[in-house]
Amino acid sequence: MKTRLWLMAGVAVAVAFAYGCKPKGAQTAISGDAASKVYVAPGQHDEFYNIVSGGFNGQMSVMGLPSGRVLKILPVFSVHPENGWGFSEETKPMLNTSHGFVPWDDLHHIAISTTNAEHDARWAFGNANNTPRIARVDLTSFKTVEIIEIPNSGGNHSSPFITENTEYVVAGTRFSVPTGNDNDRDVGIDTYKDNFRGTISFISVDKDHGDMDIAFQLEAPPFNFDLARAGKKKSHGWFFFSTYNTEMAHTLLEVNASQKDKDFIMAVNWKKAEEYIAAGKGKKVPVKYAHNKWDESTHTATSTIRTEVLSLDPRELKDIVYFIPCPKSPHGTDTDPTGEYIIGSGKLAAIIPVFSFTKMLAAIEKQDFEGNIDGMPVLKYESVLHGEVAKPGLGPLHTEFDGKGFAYTSMFVSSEIVKWNIETLEVVDRVPTYYSVGHLSIPGGPTGKPHGKYMVAYNKITKDRYLPTGPELAHSAQLYDISGDKMQLLLDFPTIGEPHYAEAFPASLIKDKQVKFYKLEENNHPHVLKGINDARVERDGNKVHIYLTSIRSNFRPDNIEGIKVGDEVYFHMTNLEQDWDVPHGLAIKGANTAELLVMPGETATLKWVPDRTGVFPFYCTDFCSALHQEMQGYLRVSPAGSNTPLKFSTGIAE
Amino acid sequence: MKTRLWLMAGVAVAVAFAYGCKPKGAQTAISGDAASKVYVAPGQHDEFYNIVSGGFNGQMSVMGLPSGRVLKILPVFSVHPENGWGFSEETKPMLNTSHGFVPWDDLHHIAISTTNAEHDARWAFGNANNTPRIARVDLTSFKTVEIIEIPNSGGNHSSPFITENTEYVVAGTRFSVPTGNDNDRDVGIDTYKDNFRGTISFISVDKDHGDMDIAFQLEAPPFNFDLARAGKKKSHGWFFFSTYNTEMAHTLLEVNASQKDKDFIMAVNWKKAEEYIAAGKGKKVPVKYAHNKWDESTHTATSTIRTEVLSLDPRELKDIVYFIPCPKSPHGTDTDPTGEYIIGSGKLAAIIPVFSFTKMLAAIEKQDFEGNIDGMPVLKYESVLHGEVAKPGLGPLHTEFDGKGFAYTSMFVSSEIVKWNIETLEVVDRVPTYYSVGHLSIPGGPTGKPHGKYMVAYNKITKDRYLPTGPELAHSAQLYDISGDKMQLLLDFPTIGEPHYAEAFPASLIKDKQVKFYKLEENNHPHVLKGINDARVERDGNKVHIYLTSIRSNFRPDNIEGIKVGDEVYFHMTNLEQDWDVPHGLAIKGANTAELLVMPGETATLKWVPDRTGVFPFYCTDFCSALHQEMQGYLRVSPAGSNTPLKFSTGIAE
Repeated sequence: MKTRLWLMAGVAVAVAFAYGCKPKGAQTAISGDAASKVYVAPGQHDEFYNIVSGGFNGQMSVMGLPSGRVLKILPVFSVHPENGWGFSEETKPMLNTSHGFVPWDDLHHIAISTTNAEHDARWAFGNANNTPRIARVDLTSFKTVEIIEIPNSGGNHSSPFITENTEYVVAGTRFSVPTGNDNDRDVGIDTYKDNFRGTISFISVDKDHGDMDIAFQLEAPPFNFDLARAGKKKSHGWFFFSTYNTEMAHTLLEVNASQKDKDFIMAVNWKKAEEYIAAGKGKKVPVKYAHNKWDESTHTATSTIRTEVLSLDPRELKDIVYFIPCPKSPHGTDTDPTGEYIIGSGKLAAIIPVFSFTKMLAAIEKQDFEGNIDGMPVLKYESVLHGEVAKPGLGPLHTEFDGKGFAYTSMFVSSEIVKWNIETLEVVDRVPTYYSVGHLSIPGGPTGKPHGKYMVAYNKITKDRYLPTGPELAHSAQLYDISGDKMQLLLDFPTIGEPHYAEAFPASLIKDKQVKFYKLEENNHPHVLKGINDARVERDGNKVHIYLTSIRSNFRPDNIEGIKVGDEVYFHMTNLEQDWDVPHGLAIKGANTAELLVMPGETATLKWVPDRTGVFPFYCTDFCSALHQEMQGYLRVSPAGSNTPLKFSTGIAE
Repeated sequence: MKTRLWLMAGVAVAVAFAYGCKPKGAQTAISGDAASKVYVAPGQHDEFYNIVSGGFNGQMSVMGLPSGRVLKILPVFSVHPENGWGFSEETKPMLNTSHGFVPWDDLHHIAISTTNAEHDARWAFGNANNTPRIARVDLTSFKTVEIIEIPNSGGNHSSPFITENTEYVVAGTRFSVPTGNDNDRDVGIDTYKDNFRGTISFISVDKDHGDMDIAFQLEAPPFNFDLARAGKKKSHGWFFFSTYNTEMAHTLLEVNASQKDKDFIMAVNWKKAEEYIAAGKGKKVPVKYAHNKWDESTHTATSTIRTEVLSLDPRELKDIVYFIPCPKSPHGTDTDPTGEYIIGSGKLAAIIPVFSFTKMLAAIEKQDFEGNIDGMPVLKYESVLHGEVAKPGLGPLHTEFDGKGFAYTSMFVSSEIVKWNIETLEVVDRVPTYYSVGHLSIPGGPTGKPHGKYMVAYNKITKDRYLPTGPELAHSAQLYDISGDKMQLLLDFPTIGEPHYAEAFPASLIKDKQVKFYKLEENNHPHVLKGINDARVERDGNKVHIYLTSIRSNFRPDNIEGIKVGDEVYFHMTNLEQDWDVPHGLAIKGANTAELLVMPGETATLKWVPDRTGVFPFYCTDFCSALHQEMQGYLRVSPAGSNTPLKFSTGIAE
């Protein structure tokens, strides 16, 4: 009975914080110049690329700012029937994992590569929250070129945040889980505190090519790791992770993980970890994880399974990990452009604590600790604190920076954004959001060089903001002008999937570096055709290889006979065009697969195992010319064992 | 050699028409008020819903006009990992066909339901071009509620156009194919003229519930059927289909199907067909096609296979089909708001012919024929012609109407839109498009009551219109103000997939009829839970049913043990919320499936067969409250044959 009463009290508190209130007061007036500020006239380009996470769609969206237009949905972790991602033979390995093909994931955060803590925009990284992985997107081709799985992780939420020269991408477990081999993992859930572990992975990124590798994993207590930010400039060499459920509850976390007044920001000295590794202190642990790589030369992916990881135990290897107490259930942890300040946003806290990196180092130096967790020091809150932002609002989640000395914190529960002075901690402005804002994003906002012109609020509740579309609504974003003293709401724009975080950067960084098409002479696909005269069909046992060319407005060959029910038919299609924006598609009428969408100079393969006889048209799916409707062919499928000879024609020889 | 020379000449002609030219002259100046005309201020709503086909993504997009914002991607024919469409047990049957589950299709055209030739906007219909099907979307829930397969069809392009009271949705074969049973279909491609057939299907729509049924199929010559429009008002009872490849070529159609100076518009008197059916003249033909239906009460779909269709042969049943000669390879065929004029857009023609329905009836009455096709009369071009629009531009494709006496025709090759007077046939305005415009869409444009305020051009080539995103670019649309004498370009907006056609209608038609959530007391799902106390886990052999509730911010049960490797685990999740815009998601960490996204009051089921031991977190994928991160549970999987007892907890009883 006592338990039940206590539980109800807990729930009441949670309810007050959890349900999100409409902001008070009337709709903010939109000043007359907002229309012209967001309007990008036909023929003009947006000023910023905005790479937006798709959340539960598993992809990234590329948007323009200030227009808020969706320039592309870029497939990463989920199958994308639209362009054959996960359906073509070439892309299937990209979605492979240590336990097979996974068609979906939940991409939460974006990190754009940096050099000297400034965006260089060579790559965009995204995390898979569900099957723990990190993806790397090449920002000259806007293509996912690498995916690496994270072993020993039960979810990958505090990821893919990066260090200032993109030395590392990190990945912290959101949920702790039993690790080790199969038998070790089959344990009672109520043995949580004994058998469950967290891990923090540091994934190295090759400076020249971007290739990722798991450099090391840190063992961690069975907390939930939520978000993270690297130190920068003066704090380069450190990484800061927010934790919640330091209560180590395993059931009804809504109540049981909201008990303590303070959880922690976990500070990691990764330079120290590197020293231990150099000294041979790491331990190789057997694991199984997939590493998938796209080859831009062969236009194919490979998936390899790796079998060990280097593990460091900071319980034994001192001075890697320190805990900073932080009120209450911190969600975001963010470092300011100077690297001096670390802001913890406790979603159940009434203030925003700002920690000083300088004070942290001093406290470590002085061993100014209030205790330890498994031997890892807990610093004293007051010793590390720069100060607290008083009465910021309800439910602080995330903080971004404008490079002019101000921080902007999203307030989920009170649905507002609060602007405050990082030095004085004084709140200088606040605006409502519609509704229940999650992440904020300022172009360059998490780097050492923010472009403090626009801010986007990614809201979690949409309700009446757009024409209603039944029970399921788009998630909504709002664009603010932050160039002046006061924030000005400019535009509401709907988004794709559920954007959590986004990073934006000046278009000038990559606009002129874009790949427009692939050079045919550089295409090293094993089944490439370099011209129409190479088009042919070959049988190899029950495998039939159709070497197909597409160029406006025909396929060669376009009549194919002698395919049998049960054959494995591979359509290897090369798009011979050598111009920008002339894709050709391929679909087989009535096949139980998706299409291919093949860019100029590229080769891709669609596999189909016919299950019935007939004559099956195939056609180009992308309206490519005035005679696009004529771009078709026929494939005849005869019964298994029948005598119909293999035969193909190109329309020329007849 | 002769063949080759001839071929090259043919190709040269094709090239001139096919490649799409940049419009001449400089960028049209954008007048200063364009920004304010397209700006929809935060808190305001768009004036029109625009339902846009997704082309090769297989879905529909819901956009707002004039803002051009994407309000929703609505899954129809392709799997949609984002919300579990095609992955949940309830939705899998929606993508079933006569030959199994198909994960993708190519949705080309939209038809919004009408009464008396005006939009009533009860339903949106879309066609699957690849595996021939028609889908119906309920516009109060924006959900695909029915999909019907079309047998005897090799592609379904001239579809889903409708009659003026939505009596029928039509579906004409794009590619003719051998029909009949398995053996009949295994024939040589070079026997095209003898063995290949076209079909035109008329699908009835239940006036009250929208349920579709194939009322009858018309046999047709082996032409390619491209697009279609119903007659309306005075021409109600007739349907007009454009044809190409009346040469009946089966290879290199780019050349071989561009030989004749005139193809046909096929006029179908469907009232006459109804008379024959009433008189028992139809023939039941054995076929196999799937009919899939969503039940809004049980929140589940069923798929049934149907086995016959009523066939009419217009070679024998006179006065159903007439052919109107139409220059050259007509793509669009469109009927004006009065129903008097039928416009054929011959993509290789130098003029636009406008036919008169009154003259057509008179010519039929007088038997003013120039020949016949298999006994079906070919009318004389001059006898049916109202007149020709002279020098409209190059590559006319589609025509829409403003209700003020003007027609607007898209010119693919010369990249422009031409406005002309329907009575006088005089060209009164022309504007460039960027680039290579396909369909046009005016709100209400294909109905008897157009809203002649805006026009959208759906362009086929994008190139430099937006910030570049590698080789693969979004398709682009352009919004024009057509309220004045001259068309004014207002906005470029990128789109999702490859929009072919779109239909827009005033938001007021459906805005207040939207379902905001499902009433829990009306939820008749076989595994619904009406409250948290019903949460439980039950084993039935190797099937485990987890009856799960979700409500901010917890799952019940949230700890589950006793699952074995190889079990079929069904998560039946009911979202207990009863408020707008509070979905909950469900994902199992590391499972090889997608997520569930469950609307308030709805129940959905995710199946997972665990392939390894461990403790697997599950969590809510949609940020639902300040304690969303705490909305999680654990599922323990033990080895097959182990003794771990089935056990679950809700956090309450402990």
